[in-house]
Amino acid sequence: MYDVIIIGAGFAGYTAAIYAARYNLKTLVIGKELGGMITESSEVWNYPGFQKISGIELMSKFLEQAKSLGAEIVADDVLKASKDNDVFKIETRQDKKYEAKSLILAMGNKRRKLEAPGGLEFESKGIHYCATCDGAFYRNKTVAVIGGSNSAAHAAELLSRFAKKVYVVYRGAALRCEPVTHDKIKADNKIEILCGYNVREVKGSQFVEKIMLDLPYKGSVELDVDGIFVELGGIPNSVLAKELEAEVNQNNEIVVNANCETSIKGVYAAGDVTNTPMRQGIVAAGQGAIAAGSAYKFVTGKSSPWS
Amino acid sequence: MYDVIIIGAGFAGYTAAIYAARYNLKTLVIGKELGGMITESSEVWNYPGFQKISGIELMSKFLEQAKSLGAEIVADDVLKASKDNDVFKIETRQDKKYEAKSLILAMGNKRRKLEAPGGLEFESKGIHYCATCDGAFYRNKTVAVIGGSNSAAHAAELLSRFAKKVYVVYRGAALRCEPVTHDKIKADNKIEILCGYNVREVKGSQFVEKIMLDLPYKGSVELDVDGIFVELGGIPNSVLAKELEAEVNQNNEIVVNANCETSIKGVYAAGDVTNTPMRQGIVAAGQGAIAAGSAYKFVTGKSSPWS
Repeated sequence: MYDVIIIGAGFAGYTAAIYAARYNLKTLVIGKELGGMITESSEVWNYPGFQKISGIELMSKFLEQAKSLGAEIVADDVLKASKDNDVFKIETRQDKKYEAKSLILAMGNKRRKLEAPGGLEFESKGIHYCATCDGAFYRNKTVAVIGGSNSAAHAAELLSRFAKKVYVVYRGAALRCEPVTHDKIKADNKIEILCGYNVREVKGSQFVEKIMLDLPYKGSVELDVDGIFVELGGIPNSVLAKELEAEVNQNNEIVVNANCETSIKGVYAAGDVTNTPMRQGIVAAGQGAIAAGSAYKFVTGKSSPWS
Repeated sequence: MYDVIIIGAGFAGYTAAIYAARYNLKTLVIGKELGGMITESSEVWNYPGFQKISGIELMSKFLEQAKSLGAEIVADDVLKASKDNDVFKIETRQDKKYEAKSLILAMGNKRRKLEAPGGLEFESKGIHYCATCDGAFYRNKTVAVIGGSNSAAHAAELLSRFAKKVYVVYRGAALRCEPVTHDKIKADNKIEILCGYNVREVKGSQFVEKIMLDLPYKGSVELDVDGIFVELGGIPNSVLAKELEAEVNQNNEIVVNANCETSIKGVYAAGDVTNTPMRQGIVAAGQGAIAAGSAYKFVTGKSSPWS
């Protein structure tokens, strides 16, 4: 019987593990993909403490730290979570069963990928998923944002602070973003919006060089770009929360309060799977620490010493 | 004219600077003590990414990172902050004047020190201010908590998970903590509560060895201890927030919402100076990032791209 099982092994899950272990809680982390989504980023510039580090290297530091403090960490996929007389029961793809007094849900967000040929091959070679993280690489260069949602529009706004030209390529007839945002990017001279276009292929040698469109734009189906920001949305991995009957909002985000408590006693959540104000590693890590504090309080009946 | 001036140069302030600079905001950090309170900790074990690092070294990494991204950082003491026609004006001890479109308040918390002889000399030599950070050093050892507040009681609770014996030394007639907490530490066999005692002196050779009491306890004024946790409370450095007429609660904490917005438009706050759920560096850093996102939105009129 664990004091706490943490599901998810990214910024939030590992930080929760570091804190839980330092509270002397018997702690297990189960992660489908150890390190989580940040391991796709070849260069992380905005995690405080490291001027530049690969996502894989950063997460291996988190993992080692959690382990060295006594947390157990396994790579496995949780298929089922249930509550039975104040005991939480977990079943995994590898046919393991675990029990815990509390749970921390930190399963993160699943990004939709660009499905056209080249969409996966050029990941870390000019294809990005985070304008905040990687936008600054494209000072005075040309980039494209793929998508028509609010987050695509916001990425275009941010990128126009760095790039000399930003294309927004969207298959729909009009962007789905808020009017106020739409007005702003329409008024921005650096931004060109291509609605009704699909990306047929991404081409390049070492790095992204061009996008092949399904229809000609200004007389050509080729769009020369230095980088591509895929903003096709994400889906919080909140299925387990629904099974546990914890509150999930219309965006599939687990609803948490300032203490990272969900609507179910003994179940806490942190990071991108929640209604977080900001999907960034440092924010998820902070929430992981808070969730561990709340789990500590729940399991031991003691208030956290810094509240 | 800066886009944002960040007051305070600890976890929250530097992280806000890293994010603000990455948004291309013209950013100035003014810190009274560069690095903030964590620089008093010789060993930080719970900042994710570093298994063990000194507070000074960790904060020098934050500083370098913020600088390398373009933030300006000055060591100075802000004496006055005011708002004049949507411009925030700052005056410092070194007679400098600065102006900005937005402010991020990250001045942290001031800890009360142990004023008895030895109270300062043994800092980092057995005198600690954070049971969460340093409690695990005292597995099977004897420690004393100095103070009678909730946070002192909570520190004692946490320390009893590691130490073989925990004294709580408090000058008042009875602890000032919540009854439920009081009951728990009274029931804990490892914890001895000494009310009505003052610490006259801390003694030791290299490290803390004993506390000299003003009155005999069990026949002796000497209390043998391996470590001392000073829990005499802290005072959020929120004076500037009051000058700006931002809401401050009865604990002197600046009241912020999930987006780190204060009650004054254009003024954001992050870290230990706020009504944060947890006074820990990683949490403060997460809030710093959120505050920078809110300042970006305010200054540019653009939504943050990950909200």
